[in-house]
Amino acid sequence: MLSVTTLGVNSALPAYGRHPTSQILHFDNQSVMVDCGEGTQMQMIKYKIKRGKLNHIFISHLHGDHYLGLPGLLNSMNLTGRTTDIHIYAPQPLEDILTMHFKAANTTLHFSLHFHALPLSEGKLMENEDFEVDTFLTEHRIECHGFVFREKKYSHSIDPAKVQAYNVPYEQYETLQKGGDFIDSNGKHIDNELLTIANIPPKSYAYCADTRYIESFIPYVKEVDLLYHETTYLDELREKAYERFHSTSKQAAEIALKSNAKRLLIGHFSSQYEYLDAFLSEARSVFANTDIAEEGKTFSL
Amino acid sequence: MLSVTTLGVNSALPAYGRHPTSQILHFDNQSVMVDCGEGTQMQMIKYKIKRGKLNHIFISHLHGDHYLGLPGLLNSMNLTGRTTDIHIYAPQPLEDILTMHFKAANTTLHFSLHFHALPLSEGKLMENEDFEVDTFLTEHRIECHGFVFREKKYSHSIDPAKVQAYNVPYEQYETLQKGGDFIDSNGKHIDNELLTIANIPPKSYAYCADTRYIESFIPYVKEVDLLYHETTYLDELREKAYERFHSTSKQAAEIALKSNAKRLLIGHFSSQYEYLDAFLSEARSVFANTDIAEEGKTFSL
Repeated sequence: MLSVTTLGVNSALPAYGRHPTSQILHFDNQSVMVDCGEGTQMQMIKYKIKRGKLNHIFISHLHGDHYLGLPGLLNSMNLTGRTTDIHIYAPQPLEDILTMHFKAANTTLHFSLHFHALPLSEGKLMENEDFEVDTFLTEHRIECHGFVFREKKYSHSIDPAKVQAYNVPYEQYETLQKGGDFIDSNGKHIDNELLTIANIPPKSYAYCADTRYIESFIPYVKEVDLLYHETTYLDELREKAYERFHSTSKQAAEIALKSNAKRLLIGHFSSQYEYLDAFLSEARSVFANTDIAEEGKTFSL
Repeated sequence: MLSVTTLGVNSALPAYGRHPTSQILHFDNQSVMVDCGEGTQMQMIKYKIKRGKLNHIFISHLHGDHYLGLPGLLNSMNLTGRTTDIHIYAPQPLEDILTMHFKAANTTLHFSLHFHALPLSEGKLMENEDFEVDTFLTEHRIECHGFVFREKKYSHSIDPAKVQAYNVPYEQYETLQKGGDFIDSNGKHIDNELLTIANIPPKSYAYCADTRYIESFIPYVKEVDLLYHETTYLDELREKAYERFHSTSKQAAEIALKSNAKRLLIGHFSSQYEYLDAFLSEARSVFANTDIAEEGKTFSL
């Protein structure tokens, strides 16, 4: 089951105890980080997020509030004996920045760091056995990428007692997991539902990063189970949002509506706001099924 | 009056709510930062340290836990409209690292950042009207610098009522502030103590950064009012401390004793220790006048 923990929900200036952006996606067997603002490794400790399950880190853009926690996090992984590979997907300049940090500290990593420069093209970015990722471009002051994460899982799970009772050979399991029926050695047809348990359908999560209101990425995020969209300002500051390449809550909700997303999650609040209730009510006036990102809170899909 | 606020007291791995190293020295008219680990800007907000009074930042070495908070702090200064110059004293590679961060974010600073590469020679580093700084080398895994900060202040303050009563012209004030007497236009000698108030003598603070136990810098830190020395481990791990270019509490106390420091402050605790009482008792067994660094605590000299 896919879930999302928001570790940092503020925009560039930390304020009112709110930290810069970072999120953790929990898949069945591994977790993924999206953005890594300063202090993320401390937030992970506070909210009991294990570093060991984290193998993929996606960085949307190179404003400091979205990646300055990364050198420290990698260093802590190294100090605590990590040997498992890590994959970083980020704009190209980050590779040299990380290299300079490690060189200045005379650090030798004891794990392999695979740096994948994000392409300026949109579409499929990567996949592994647990999830696949599409990337798209947002409209921000610098190159900025959004991501759609889709769980990969079989539609059905084997029912151990049933497959034993019907003597299903192991080689047939994948056919069953994909929803197919079983035909035994005598040609007898056994329906899939007698041998399996239907899984919850795979879920999808879209992270729309920092962006002005633009509709060009809607085709990529259509129908997702949860859509995260930034809302640095309330709609009364719509012009300021435009000038600064950010969005308002109403705009975030309009994107969710036009994308036919099932739910909306809003975050990246400006430090000029101490209280956030108005963000939620404004978004809900357009798109009812909206939640507000809180630090340490986990949203299950 | 000089005082020191410790904002981060842990070694490289954050643990038990303790943050990587940063300290603020408060002089009469400005404040100074020594080291700037990840999360320092959030610690400054938490402990109500004003960014505006901070004009000089000293970075001892380029291990991440001593400087990774700097790009974010500078960025926040920029976002909040700072126009006052800032001076950074640090090992040379930090200049390129900062430049790469700003370039990647397409950031234009609205204040002048003066980068001063730390020399490998020891002795006087800089001075202004409020303080002067000596630097010395410690023994660490990479180039690492210690600093001695000395208040600069007149030995005497003008007593406004008295100088008016004796008709002392303004041009004579500095002579009085330095302890000299006043001779009026008739040649009459007025003793200094009739015209001034004696100031508290200027104070000194030594920051010994990360280091193995070495005595070579003792001449620079001799007789200081407060000596900060790292103590990553307890003395039972003296060999581990040596291997990792760190010190124990007993060793920190020995340096304070041999330096004839008035007080000792210990910090930079390893993440393997949850409780810190043993650090204090161990140091006090050698040097009684020892305090332990706590986050947000201010030590007045």
